[in-house]
Amino acid sequence: MAVYTHVSDEDLKDFLTHYEVGEVLSFKGIAEGVENSNYLLKTTDSSYILTLYEKRVDEADLPFFLGLMDHVAKRGVSCATAIAGRDGSLIRSLNGRPTALISFLNGLSIHHVSKAHCAAVGATLAEFHEASSDFALVRPNGLGPADWRPLFEKCKARADEVEPGLAQLMEAELDALDAAWPVGLPQGVIHADLFPDNVFFLGGELSGIIDFYFACNDTRAYDLACCLNAWCFDGETRFERAKAEALIGAYEAVHPLSAEERQALPILCRGSAMRFLVTRLHDWLFHPAGALVAPKDPSDYINRLKFHQSVTDASDYGLA
Amino acid sequence: MAVYTHVSDEDLKDFLTHYEVGEVLSFKGIAEGVENSNYLLKTTDSSYILTLYEKRVDEADLPFFLGLMDHVAKRGVSCATAIAGRDGSLIRSLNGRPTALISFLNGLSIHHVSKAHCAAVGATLAEFHEASSDFALVRPNGLGPADWRPLFEKCKARADEVEPGLAQLMEAELDALDAAWPVGLPQGVIHADLFPDNVFFLGGELSGIIDFYFACNDTRAYDLACCLNAWCFDGETRFERAKAEALIGAYEAVHPLSAEERQALPILCRGSAMRFLVTRLHDWLFHPAGALVAPKDPSDYINRLKFHQSVTDASDYGLA
Repeated sequence: MAVYTHVSDEDLKDFLTHYEVGEVLSFKGIAEGVENSNYLLKTTDSSYILTLYEKRVDEADLPFFLGLMDHVAKRGVSCATAIAGRDGSLIRSLNGRPTALISFLNGLSIHHVSKAHCAAVGATLAEFHEASSDFALVRPNGLGPADWRPLFEKCKARADEVEPGLAQLMEAELDALDAAWPVGLPQGVIHADLFPDNVFFLGGELSGIIDFYFACNDTRAYDLACCLNAWCFDGETRFERAKAEALIGAYEAVHPLSAEERQALPILCRGSAMRFLVTRLHDWLFHPAGALVAPKDPSDYINRLKFHQSVTDASDYGLA
Repeated sequence: MAVYTHVSDEDLKDFLTHYEVGEVLSFKGIAEGVENSNYLLKTTDSSYILTLYEKRVDEADLPFFLGLMDHVAKRGVSCATAIAGRDGSLIRSLNGRPTALISFLNGLSIHHVSKAHCAAVGATLAEFHEASSDFALVRPNGLGPADWRPLFEKCKARADEVEPGLAQLMEAELDALDAAWPVGLPQGVIHADLFPDNVFFLGGELSGIIDFYFACNDTRAYDLACCLNAWCFDGETRFERAKAEALIGAYEAVHPLSAEERQALPILCRGSAMRFLVTRLHDWLFHPAGALVAPKDPSDYINRLKFHQSVTDASDYGLA
């Protein structure tokens, strides 16, 4: 929620000589996203988001992210896409940062999640999986199972500052995940971060999805598990089965799960809870003093993890 | 440069039932302003800025600020104005903060100031002084000469952390200002904060002014002195006489200065430099750890003050 790299009127003017987007009318830094600097640009033609990719995004991954957005948008997924410059390129340096001009997507992130929102997310996730299935570029998951333990090891000595016993809980869970992590499930390009912040609604309808900067090739049903964690718990971290039913039901209406995917869902949900728990724990313990972005409380994901550990059968998630 | 108070989609929806501004299309927190929380709202009708006034703005002053914007806009000054709700009121509570919906003004703040920019600012300042001359409400300057010494006294013991000898310099200057501060000069409603951040340009033309939250009744030529400090020094804090000539010349084309105002200009510039020096020094020394907004370096205003102390005659500012 910050602007890290300043862009002056003159920087912008120089940058936009490479694009055909009309005359600038307005340009404001927006308090959105935790990884990058974002500006809202209004021109005589349209509105755009100018994104300067900061250190946590690897420039080498940008062709994957921006190419993916374009690929799935052309196949009917409503999402922002990068605008090509006059030379056809989507990425250009601005003030030392790789930068893209992104189309503006109408809609608002929602605060109170309803069953209808969950159904819309499930359907859109399935459509995204279909649309991305023939995307040619490949990006391994940088926050997959193999990455959780090294992050945990950095946090282990201080994990109990968040909750007594947390280090032991996580260590045992990492062992359990290593032992039980499913292999051979259907793979594809997954969004991997489809949280309410990254989904816009307009008049009750899902108007688009944003922020593809964790997208990668991985187990498709793991993306569904991430959505269950992101959308189907209430403010007290209680699982809301009716929402999960709606989300999974809408996903399966487009893209039915195999028996193996259904069976793996509890362990995928545990892994997904571990992924967000370990990154939040890391940012919570090691965020620099005076950081512009307040780190998110990891405790919510301890509770999610404990819930998934209690699940004995995928039908507990409301699978038909 | 921050959003202090979060407004959810539902908060916004409830708030907007009191306005006739069309259907919401988009709503984003913007990284603008240091005092308040600002959101950019796009509706089917138009674009707006939603401003939640935070602690540094006294709610009792809002009728003055918002009334002034409306008053001068009706008299031809290009500036943002508050939108009235269905009940006619300009101010409404949102998440515990007094809040106003403000019209959206096209344009960009400029980084490199030219003589033409200064001339445009001088002309607009004079037009603003004319337009505000019959505004009925009154607000004393909360950061006038009487307020500088108490702020300095809070900082005195630590002032030399910024520059050795600063405490002595400021104390002597406060004495000099007390002794020489002009009385009886033409009064009016002044903007008091017309910095480049608060002036928008579009295609080389001044498109509007914003941020009236320091506006007050005070000596009109003091506002001109504030503009000289804000617009007529280069990046190394060297006075740029050609820009001052352009700014003052354009001001006088609308609103000629009296002999007394011209004569008082050096001391008014010293006072204005002191006003920004003492508030920046205070914020520099006392900003809370982890503050969302980085305090501005007070040193620039030490140099400005020293320049003005060296001025012996108003003609040094380029007055014709």
